[in-house]
Amino acid sequence: MTGFDLSDAAARRALGGLGGGVQAAAVYAAAAWSVITEPGDGVAGRLLAVLGPVEALARAALEDVPGDVAEAAGVTPQQLQAAAERWRPRLDQRAVDSALVRARAAGAALLTRGDPRWPHRLDDLGPHAPHCLWIRGSVDGLDSAATLAIVGARAASGYGDHVAGELAAALAADGVVVVSGAAYGIDGAAHRGALGPGGRTIALLAGGVDRPYPAGHADLIARIAREGAVVSETPCGTAPSKWRFLARNRLIAALSDATVVVEAGIRSGSLNTAAHAAELGRPLGAVPGQITSASSAGCHRILREYPAVCITGPDDVRELLGLTTSSHAPAGARTDDLTRLLDAASTRAPRSVADLARRSGLAVAEVEALLGLAALTGGMVSDGTGWRRAPSG
Amino acid sequence: MTGFDLSDAAARRALGGLGGGVQAAAVYAAAAWSVITEPGDGVAGRLLAVLGPVEALARAALEDVPGDVAEAAGVTPQQLQAAAERWRPRLDQRAVDSALVRARAAGAALLTRGDPRWPHRLDDLGPHAPHCLWIRGSVDGLDSAATLAIVGARAASGYGDHVAGELAAALAADGVVVVSGAAYGIDGAAHRGALGPGGRTIALLAGGVDRPYPAGHADLIARIAREGAVVSETPCGTAPSKWRFLARNRLIAALSDATVVVEAGIRSGSLNTAAHAAELGRPLGAVPGQITSASSAGCHRILREYPAVCITGPDDVRELLGLTTSSHAPAGARTDDLTRLLDAASTRAPRSVADLARRSGLAVAEVEALLGLAALTGGMVSDGTGWRRAPSG
Repeated sequence: MTGFDLSDAAARRALGGLGGGVQAAAVYAAAAWSVITEPGDGVAGRLLAVLGPVEALARAALEDVPGDVAEAAGVTPQQLQAAAERWRPRLDQRAVDSALVRARAAGAALLTRGDPRWPHRLDDLGPHAPHCLWIRGSVDGLDSAATLAIVGARAASGYGDHVAGELAAALAADGVVVVSGAAYGIDGAAHRGALGPGGRTIALLAGGVDRPYPAGHADLIARIAREGAVVSETPCGTAPSKWRFLARNRLIAALSDATVVVEAGIRSGSLNTAAHAAELGRPLGAVPGQITSASSAGCHRILREYPAVCITGPDDVRELLGLTTSSHAPAGARTDDLTRLLDAASTRAPRSVADLARRSGLAVAEVEALLGLAALTGGMVSDGTGWRRAPSG
Repeated sequence: MTGFDLSDAAARRALGGLGGGVQAAAVYAAAAWSVITEPGDGVAGRLLAVLGPVEALARAALEDVPGDVAEAAGVTPQQLQAAAERWRPRLDQRAVDSALVRARAAGAALLTRGDPRWPHRLDDLGPHAPHCLWIRGSVDGLDSAATLAIVGARAASGYGDHVAGELAAALAADGVVVVSGAAYGIDGAAHRGALGPGGRTIALLAGGVDRPYPAGHADLIARIAREGAVVSETPCGTAPSKWRFLARNRLIAALSDATVVVEAGIRSGSLNTAAHAAELGRPLGAVPGQITSASSAGCHRILREYPAVCITGPDDVRELLGLTTSSHAPAGARTDDLTRLLDAASTRAPRSVADLARRSGLAVAEVEALLGLAALTGGMVSDGTGWRRAPSG
């Protein structure tokens, strides 16, 4: 076990300008917690909520964490002890300092909860919220007025790529920030679609922001860092792992006002993002596709299993975000008496009012009233011998 | 105005064996009401509910319908008077007798509410239920244990035709009776799909059953009459009209335990059928398609605007009908500690328990417990120097 030097001077020195320099010890300790824990560690989250990162770190370094701390944090002593045993192998100040050195080398910023630019949408994750964010690019964009996650399968079809790009471009043109995971397929199409019209986009990575993943998207991720932001809760140097991808998905959902899944296989990670959005009570949408296409099966599953909206275009997404109200006219069909009168009329043979009444099943007086209306609107014409339906009617 | 001879002898003579010959006057009067009214006439329905068809017909033929009759039927005297004026142009016994002659010529049967084979699902339409049904084919099939409407666009795509045929064939093979409207496109594909495996299917026509419509489906309709049933509430000789198509759609919905729309344009008549199914509280499903396909736009609209299920295959339809329970495993993904351990392991480099604990963010004791489990299931292997992930794990 290693004791941490949590003096303000030591923290300021280790940060070297990261985190803005205010409350250096708190910023440093938050960074340390992102090194010590895996994403989403609820015990750490509860402990930090009652003690703050500095005090929590000092206590975590003790051989035995006092029982009253557990009680205050709302966990059992057993849970806290088990968590402390998980943290212990990583309680190494050199690892924290190394992550800070890497971050500075990569030009990454460090954003903590006390910063006014902290995206408070993440607070909805409660004790599972990240302790800090490592960011390449614009820190200011994270708390934008409207953010939309567009996610989906890596093995996307041409249809999925097309739809993701079109939706992202349309919403980005409206000023909406498009959030995604920088993966191949739908994620990449969404980022590119948003950048196309000069829009803003944010890529959430599962590993450190100094390790662009996937490698084939290094150029895209570098462009997102220049024009938007590349963000991770894991410190620089961290490799992406399956666990971290799943944990990252909760951040995509939490950072976004709404989530839209464009294409997804039946076991796609996007279902996990959708589940997080639903748990957070955020609006969720899925783009349908042909039921014979495996890359739409996950979207159909979302439509079946979640209170998710069937997304057919940018207007549906705007509605999901609350930017517009429904543009859909109510379903149904005109089933009124005028239809019955027009049905009973011929475009060729003129018919008498009595004949039209018999054929339509309407009263003579009703036919007369409707004919008056239909004559005005041009639906029916009289030639003296009787009434015909206008050819265009 | 024409008085009707409603004696049993006259009715029996006019029916000529239609309707089974029991309560001949009632059967005859029900047939007369189907001639006098357009489908879905709620005032007629209410009047018949309190007076029965014979008495209602005798009253309707009077110049003034007494006010107490309106009160008993639950309509205003004005509504009854207006309805009587609609009926008057058609109060012609020769038209009724002519419809009966045509029915016998077409080999059609006449089914009325008093018949034990009457499909009581139609009673859910209340005063808008049909007075009688004209049937070519098997009268017995209408009240089958499980009936499913498969409907959709006339201008169907190859995708829609394929899906409709596959769904109909799968459900018909289960013994489900497939109900549709005999139109081009989805309807035709559904009927053919059901007939393929020797299944039962019912075609509901908007005009008389002696007038196959559309003409291009005359052979298909003749085959349905031989192997299933062709049904209409309008008497023989009646031409289909826009009103009657819309009214026919309510019968498709009412005769079916559930309705599935396979493809539909944004203003398709199938939306009308879907609306009737929803109003009747019957389960409703829609098959999704690509959002770039106009022939799926109506299905997506149904998924947005109704409590409709996204149908991706026969199992979803069986579930809609209550024949099976969900075959879908709950969505989500494995996000447990074992994943974190496997993430931390390498398939090549053996790692110590302490190293795996640090890399995974798990406690040493947790790693040891998980390794015991993983060794049993073959996910992790030990070579004496440390632990590696099994290549298949």
